[in-house]
Amino acid sequence: MSSTVGKVIRCRAAVSWEAGKPLVIEEVEVAPPQAMEVRVKILFTALCHTDVYFWEAKGQTPVFPRIFGHEAAGIVESVGEGVTELKPGDHVLPVFTGECKDCRHCKSEESNMCDLLRINTDRGVMLNDGQSRFSINGKPIYHFVGTSTFSEYTVIHVGCLAKINPAAPLDKVCILSCGVSTGLGATLNVAKPPKGSTVAIFGLGAVGLSAAEGARIAGASRIIGVDLNPKRFHEAKKFGVTDFVNPKDYDKPVQEVIAEMTDGGVDRSVECTGNINAMISAFECVHDGWGVAVLVGVPSKDDAFKSHPMNFLNERTLKGTFFGNYKPRTDLPSVVEMYLRKELELEKFITHEVTLSNINKAFDYMLKGESLRCIIRMD
Amino acid sequence: MSSTVGKVIRCRAAVSWEAGKPLVIEEVEVAPPQAMEVRVKILFTALCHTDVYFWEAKGQTPVFPRIFGHEAAGIVESVGEGVTELKPGDHVLPVFTGECKDCRHCKSEESNMCDLLRINTDRGVMLNDGQSRFSINGKPIYHFVGTSTFSEYTVIHVGCLAKINPAAPLDKVCILSCGVSTGLGATLNVAKPPKGSTVAIFGLGAVGLSAAEGARIAGASRIIGVDLNPKRFHEAKKFGVTDFVNPKDYDKPVQEVIAEMTDGGVDRSVECTGNINAMISAFECVHDGWGVAVLVGVPSKDDAFKSHPMNFLNERTLKGTFFGNYKPRTDLPSVVEMYLRKELELEKFITHEVTLSNINKAFDYMLKGESLRCIIRMD
Repeated sequence: MSSTVGKVIRCRAAVSWEAGKPLVIEEVEVAPPQAMEVRVKILFTALCHTDVYFWEAKGQTPVFPRIFGHEAAGIVESVGEGVTELKPGDHVLPVFTGECKDCRHCKSEESNMCDLLRINTDRGVMLNDGQSRFSINGKPIYHFVGTSTFSEYTVIHVGCLAKINPAAPLDKVCILSCGVSTGLGATLNVAKPPKGSTVAIFGLGAVGLSAAEGARIAGASRIIGVDLNPKRFHEAKKFGVTDFVNPKDYDKPVQEVIAEMTDGGVDRSVECTGNINAMISAFECVHDGWGVAVLVGVPSKDDAFKSHPMNFLNERTLKGTFFGNYKPRTDLPSVVEMYLRKELELEKFITHEVTLSNINKAFDYMLKGESLRCIIRMD
Repeated sequence: MSSTVGKVIRCRAAVSWEAGKPLVIEEVEVAPPQAMEVRVKILFTALCHTDVYFWEAKGQTPVFPRIFGHEAAGIVESVGEGVTELKPGDHVLPVFTGECKDCRHCKSEESNMCDLLRINTDRGVMLNDGQSRFSINGKPIYHFVGTSTFSEYTVIHVGCLAKINPAAPLDKVCILSCGVSTGLGATLNVAKPPKGSTVAIFGLGAVGLSAAEGARIAGASRIIGVDLNPKRFHEAKKFGVTDFVNPKDYDKPVQEVIAEMTDGGVDRSVECTGNINAMISAFECVHDGWGVAVLVGVPSKDDAFKSHPMNFLNERTLKGTFFGNYKPRTDLPSVVEMYLRKELELEKFITHEVTLSNINKAFDYMLKGESLRCIIRMD
């Protein structure tokens, strides 16, 4: 790879020119990495709801033309000034949020919300110089959440790259870079269900099923899946979900249904839909005395969480989490090891695979609700 | 004491005949303890806001005539059938909520909300036979929260009595039976501030000052007291409070004031007023990434806790606690030991002392906001 070091690389990328319009495969120029940056050859990327959400750009600041993509795996091509932790050839997972290792959050054992590299969906440029590293005929193409993995090569801040075991198959562990870790960590790091406990999971998409996978790994004896779509129930069984509740089947609030099923409430719940009513239900369905509810799904701007304070005073806990409380550089390598030890199963999340040329099919599968994860092969 | 075993005891008690009317010292008959009950000679009792609240009986079921009182210390006079853990002469603290040691809550390490003996403010009788043990000329006088300590003798379920070190001075440790333990435990058992952390305490009455005392014991470096009454600030310094915020002094919400004082928020907060706006402020003033807010104050029936869910998703935690998460029988003896080791200071909570004949003065001190704790000597 040394022949490309310090030079602009021309490669293929899926460019989003306009909100909601099909992506176009273009030849782009990728500038060399600057201070604290790394240029990565992406081998596999996957599509996540967040890509679709910002591609649709309904209600957010539209930043176009842009290269989306943030769930991926690749190999370091070259590193910029000051980068000592990574070298060409290292296997890495890009992450949409970073870890500078220097701010109060990075120094706290409890937080992963790095002040310097926390997710910023409005920014389309690199921190070092406020410019993009992507261009077509000299015109800049914007970055997305610091990763832009829908490109054969991309430039990423070193703080947003987790160095992983090179033995790990990149076409599988690429999905650890966002959704699966988010759900898994919400259960394992935040809800922490004791062995034998009862856990409710709200929303059975990839994040919710990852939360269920976390409950299975933790040894929960009963995992109650809640979703409005009954088709999700069959698939959820593979993830250890034992009971299914469709709120549409009942005349009463789902928290009451769950309390009746469980003699007063579940021990833990994890909310993965972002719907405000599901958040309230997820909180109110945990048992008094010890119940812990964890919010994962991202709410709308104007939502208000509302509950009677006695629900708290009766010794319930409500927490939120971001990226499953994993510190990207410190913690993700050990999640990859969990997969390599076969404790965590990733294959069952991967329902589809396409090549970069067919990336728009991945969008179709997701929009139709057909896929959990669709892998996009770059070669 | 053996001469009274199995017999009715005639003694003095402060009887509340009517809501809001001065208590009257009467001679009452106290029946012997039944199965799982203990008759206790009360030596010292204190007045807590909860007594005043139910004596005023605004908006609750009025249960009169009644003997109030639940913060106290005494000596076992005799025990009923099946009582093996206590014997005559043991020193005990009565507690308004119990620990049966047999239900799911008592068996859980995380809960102290015993199913059998959880506080019940409407019940004026004993569990065993649904009758009162107090009477005047054969007419029943009702119990209050299973303790009724404004009487020289009272009958209490064994599950609501903590056996303590007989070396402990009962005129001091009597205040551990409710308010002080509630605030102290909220900080030490639930908020758990790390050494050197910043803690905000909302409400600087006895419970809030106990929470501050917990923060001091935990080694907090900065304790911010929040109260609408500036007179409270001077006293609070004795409890380790370093900074004072009166929300009336600012045009913006107190959570913003605190965030500015602390570079983004406190590490922990404890809410001891029960005011719904204070609850919301206490939650929103904790730092993202690691902040934990603990609710202690009891809200009104129609209150709604309301906050934007992003405040949770940014990794804040909200918990409620009941009696500081202490299990009364298991944990209170160790709080008494903390006092005996001089780690916990109780003297500074005790601002007044009266005899039983003057119990109405204790009500006056509290209603005027003059006292933190007024000890009532029974002899």
